[in-house]
Amino acid sequence: MTVRVGVIGVGVMGTDHVRTLRTVVSGATVTVITDFDASRAAAIAEEVGARTVATAAELIAAPDVDAVIIASHDSAHAEQVSLCLDHLKPVLCEKPLAPTVDECRDLVAKEDALALAKPLVSVGFMRRFHHPYVALADEVRSGSIGIPLLVRSSHRNVSAYPGGDSASTITNSAIHEIDITSWLLGSPIVEVSWYAPRSTSYDTSRQDPQVLLLRTSDGALTTVDVFVNARYGYDVRCEVVGETGAVSLAPSHVLTVDSSLRSAATYPEDWRPLFADAYRRQLQAWVESLAADTPTPLATARDGLRATEVAAALIDSMNNAGAVTPVRNS
Amino acid sequence: MTVRVGVIGVGVMGTDHVRTLRTVVSGATVTVITDFDASRAAAIAEEVGARTVATAAELIAAPDVDAVIIASHDSAHAEQVSLCLDHLKPVLCEKPLAPTVDECRDLVAKEDALALAKPLVSVGFMRRFHHPYVALADEVRSGSIGIPLLVRSSHRNVSAYPGGDSASTITNSAIHEIDITSWLLGSPIVEVSWYAPRSTSYDTSRQDPQVLLLRTSDGALTTVDVFVNARYGYDVRCEVVGETGAVSLAPSHVLTVDSSLRSAATYPEDWRPLFADAYRRQLQAWVESLAADTPTPLATARDGLRATEVAAALIDSMNNAGAVTPVRNS
Amino acid sequence: MTVRVGVIGVGVMGTDHVRTLRTVVSGATVTVITDFDASRAAAIAEEVGARTVATAAELIAAPDVDAVIIASHDSAHAEQVSLCLDHLKPVLCEKPLAPTVDECRDLVAKEDALALAKPLVSVGFMRRFHHPYVALADEVRSGSIGIPLLVRSSHRNVSAYPGGDSASTITNSAIHEIDITSWLLGSPIVEVSWYAPRSTSYDTSRQDPQVLLLRTSDGALTTVDVFVNARYGYDVRCEVVGETGAVSLAPSHVLTVDSSLRSAATYPEDWRPLFADAYRRQLQAWVESLAADTPTPLATARDGLRATEVAAALIDSMNNAGAVTPVRNS
Amino acid sequence: MTVRVGVIGVGVMGTDHVRTLRTVVSGATVTVITDFDASRAAAIAEEVGARTVATAAELIAAPDVDAVIIASHDSAHAEQVSLCLDHLKPVLCEKPLAPTVDECRDLVAKEDALALAKPLVSVGFMRRFHHPYVALADEVRSGSIGIPLLVRSSHRNVSAYPGGDSASTITNSAIHEIDITSWLLGSPIVEVSWYAPRSTSYDTSRQDPQVLLLRTSDGALTTVDVFVNARYGYDVRCEVVGETGAVSLAPSHVLTVDSSLRSAATYPEDWRPLFADAYRRQLQAWVESLAADTPTPLATARDGLRATEVAAALIDSMNNAGAVTPVRNS
Repeated sequence: MTVRVGVIGVGVMGTDHVRTLRTVVSGATVTVITDFDASRAAAIAEEVGARTVATAAELIAAPDVDAVIIASHDSAHAEQVSLCLDHLKPVLCEKPLAPTVDECRDLVAKEDALALAKPLVSVGFMRRFHHPYVALADEVRSGSIGIPLLVRSSHRNVSAYPGGDSASTITNSAIHEIDITSWLLGSPIVEVSWYAPRSTSYDTSRQDPQVLLLRTSDGALTTVDVFVNARYGYDVRCEVVGETGAVSLAPSHVLTVDSSLRSAATYPEDWRPLFADAYRRQLQAWVESLAADTPTPLATARDGLRATEVAAALIDSMNNAGAVTPVRNS
Repeated sequence: MTVRVGVIGVGVMGTDHVRTLRTVVSGATVTVITDFDASRAAAIAEEVGARTVATAAELIAAPDVDAVIIASHDSAHAEQVSLCLDHLKPVLCEKPLAPTVDECRDLVAKEDALALAKPLVSVGFMRRFHHPYVALADEVRSGSIGIPLLVRSSHRNVSAYPGGDSASTITNSAIHEIDITSWLLGSPIVEVSWYAPRSTSYDTSRQDPQVLLLRTSDGALTTVDVFVNARYGYDVRCEVVGETGAVSLAPSHVLTVDSSLRSAATYPEDWRPLFADAYRRQLQAWVESLAADTPTPLATARDGLRATEVAAALIDSMNNAGAVTPVRNS
Repeated sequence: MTVRVGVIGVGVMGTDHVRTLRTVVSGATVTVITDFDASRAAAIAEEVGARTVATAAELIAAPDVDAVIIASHDSAHAEQVSLCLDHLKPVLCEKPLAPTVDECRDLVAKEDALALAKPLVSVGFMRRFHHPYVALADEVRSGSIGIPLLVRSSHRNVSAYPGGDSASTITNSAIHEIDITSWLLGSPIVEVSWYAPRSTSYDTSRQDPQVLLLRTSDGALTTVDVFVNARYGYDVRCEVVGETGAVSLAPSHVLTVDSSLRSAATYPEDWRPLFADAYRRQLQAWVESLAADTPTPLATARDGLRATEVAAALIDSMNNAGAVTPVRNS
Repeated sequence: MTVRVGVIGVGVMGTDHVRTLRTVVSGATVTVITDFDASRAAAIAEEVGARTVATAAELIAAPDVDAVIIASHDSAHAEQVSLCLDHLKPVLCEKPLAPTVDECRDLVAKEDALALAKPLVSVGFMRRFHHPYVALADEVRSGSIGIPLLVRSSHRNVSAYPGGDSASTITNSAIHEIDITSWLLGSPIVEVSWYAPRSTSYDTSRQDPQVLLLRTSDGALTTVDVFVNARYGYDVRCEVVGETGAVSLAPSHVLTVDSSLRSAATYPEDWRPLFADAYRRQLQAWVESLAADTPTPLATARDGLRATEVAAALIDSMNNAGAVTPVRNS
């Protein structure tokens, strides 16, 4: 069985998904595409032999769409996911599930009310499919480092998108750290606090970098520094320290170049080269679960809600002089 | 268009190919499988929804087979590839194309005689699709290290298969180094010599390790050490030294584990974890070229012949006290 | 001129100093030794051709002692340093200068009152002479990473000495991180807070690990994790993140050993192999400044006081639920 | 007892030795200096409080010289070492002991004829005191990698001194690899061969790089690439591969700098930063053995002869189309 996928939104992310499905994923075909920019939709649709429709609603209702990918603007996610639930169509929604806790909570409630055996909603926290993170989680679960006590993570972008502020650092960037921390430790984040290092002069619109402390319910403490204008490269690090040892992501470069009195490895400019394979694996796993009619192995709507709740608590801490702030559980 | 693939031989390698095509390659389906062990063929055929036939000839002739993968015993390659040429079916033959230079030469001649616009035969030198080697070749071609002068490669296996000898180290293991060296440098190997370090006591059936010197027509010299009972891990290394710099494959591990007074990375036990993604990419590239009716981006029959010629020259050198030995060009 | 050194206390640290002075430092000789354990003093004195005296006071007053090293119990430091000031003898006191802020403050005041052109008191914060830290500080000062914004440090011991508690983690171990942070950034620590990750079950006498946040007057924020029962090895890490780049201490191992499916480097069991050369350089620099009659390049009494003040603020934070706590300046 | 050292030749190397003895070596003083350039001798003599004499002969005979360091032009070594033997003065001669095998052999014979309990002559193969090489040798001897089978070494300089040729690459640069190989394996080199990769266009006066194969009497094979115009940095590498594992020198940098999409470590421009500590340790060990009247732990005259014999065999191979060439034993 070939899964027929409709894609809503073909900006950078959505276009990547369409091409990935078309060229390197087994068992899927992209049948329908929509975008608020009709010419953009038409171009990529022609490239992969899909058709276009005018609206997300039309796409979701289309009989030749078995499953939906939402890569539209964050503000449209909630409504589109809700429509998918109305049509009982499996949907992979790019993170965030929705910008606000309330919207996320409503989506979870709506899905819960359907009382389905398998969830319809998946959320695109693709790091869960990044091979090094998977290996890291396996190592932690193997017990080789003992019970995890402390996690140290770093998230560094070359430069921030214009138009953001200190809160968007959390909701757009740190959100990945939030999800992966819980996933790695198998424990929800229950308490957070927020700290401001000296701020870079290259971005006056936000505090940057930020330091986040995340307490999981198992008692472990995670420190995260997020620096979205780090300039030196796109860089993600993670170390889990346990009772008897520690395990870290190794540097991700594949070459060492010696020249001009330097031995150097290259950083990517953004997340795409680093996570291209994770996106492929995530889509493949999603398609495979759809074809096999098994529960999604991706993050669920509840995971998406949880990450948004933690982000909201961090923003509360930020607005409250870094106070230690509990995460309100839904 | 979905490419319908028939697979001859479903030992370790062939089974991997079937599953890779089935689960993570876009645009292909495995339709027919054959193996001298009929029950083994039946089992994997059922797993992926293919049918079985009794013989390779039947498979190659089958109307529901657009393209053939040969993963049978080395000794059967020549005849099966030849049959594919008779039926004008594209074929991906696992290395070696054939065990002897004469067989390889006959296959190349037969394909040449067909005077096709695009070659039918591809050879499975999958390292050409290993992302780090691709990046290494790109770096060399970028000119960042200047003209290449010297290459240093290492090939280490944990332990050799029983039943081999010093010659099989060259034809089974070093053959990958031979192919990748020419490919990296874009220059054929024209002269070789062979050297014997102290030999391990763990394998008395062969000289192990061996050191090979390979001269390419551009004048560069490549040193290769091949150690098929290295015991410590499966390990492949390569450094290209040029006029202004050098570039090396970085270690391939994804984690660092700190415990028991050690900071350690893990070696795989064999080549499969290291090259799984290269096999996937190779199959995807092959399928894509078949679907698009473009020339194969894989190694060709001529590349397979060339590698076998170099291996033969190395064995001549081995049998002639390490004499510097020219590679006879076909 | 050969500097004649008297050494007070020849436990592990003092004995190391005596031997280092004797065997690998230019321009110094150990003339007098004292220890509360007279036989221990006699043994090492005989080894290096020194004489022994019964008391620290006698040693400090001795005419054949130009300069004093104090490696006695922490609780004796203040009185012995004070005596050195009375005799106007240069003194290198092992850290801490004294256990309490008050004692340290009194010593600084007493030295200030002497109104000398050059300070008499040096404090043994040897990391300032560890070549990698020196290179790190040089790199930071070079401006290559821009203005420092964030520092991430880790301090890991294999196991804690028995008899300690959460406070002694700070005063004995974190004290090095405190001193080096200010030194690296060239900025005093003005505010601190303290956090408790999940605590190891291997040491029930203290919270372990601990996470410390240190704010320097330049606005930069330093995160330190101190884990004195990390078990995996003695490990010290430091990364300074600036506006345009980041710089880190590289791993300190000199070998990589491949065996048993592992590529491994060795951690030392304690600080001595890692910092042996730093101790040598520190002693050499001290002796050289004495011979040349130039100001000490080592940490001063005021640096010692400052570190003790920061440690006290951290303990206050620890006892106050991790409250952000200002460092009281003397 | 303070060892009074006379230094012959205060070019780069000799001046480094004088300053090292003066500032960071225990138990020695530089008393007399000579150089063919009298003003150069006077300047450094004044710096360290030594006197100058006009000739090497005068220095060697001086009553206030207990031991001699020879850092003069290579062509003067033999005569000066011979004079030291005449005066029964311990001497540390920079490598090479002498440029020709015959001269070296005469010196060894002359020293042997003295029938002393302890050798007078030491040769400055300082790598034997480089901490990483010492650790590498310890690891090999520990048996952790089993019996050594294969060694892979690289020696890379930024650029060659003008005036050299292909032979001087061997006698000046590869000579260190020759000595250290025997020392590491505890086995003399008995057979060699020489190979020419493509040669750099940056130095038309010599073949560069060169590849050397060295066979030790234990049967192990060592491959060495020597590239004296590698341009990218000063770099020395060594891996010893044994029956059950392999051990390598780790990269020697102390920092990692992240900037401009690169994670980079710095190479030194020449050997001095890399080996400064090895020179210090070598001098300290030499002085200590003189003070304690124990046999020199440095390379001996016979080691110096042996290295020159191997170099001569390599040059023979070079002049004989890379023929496998036995090393003539004295």
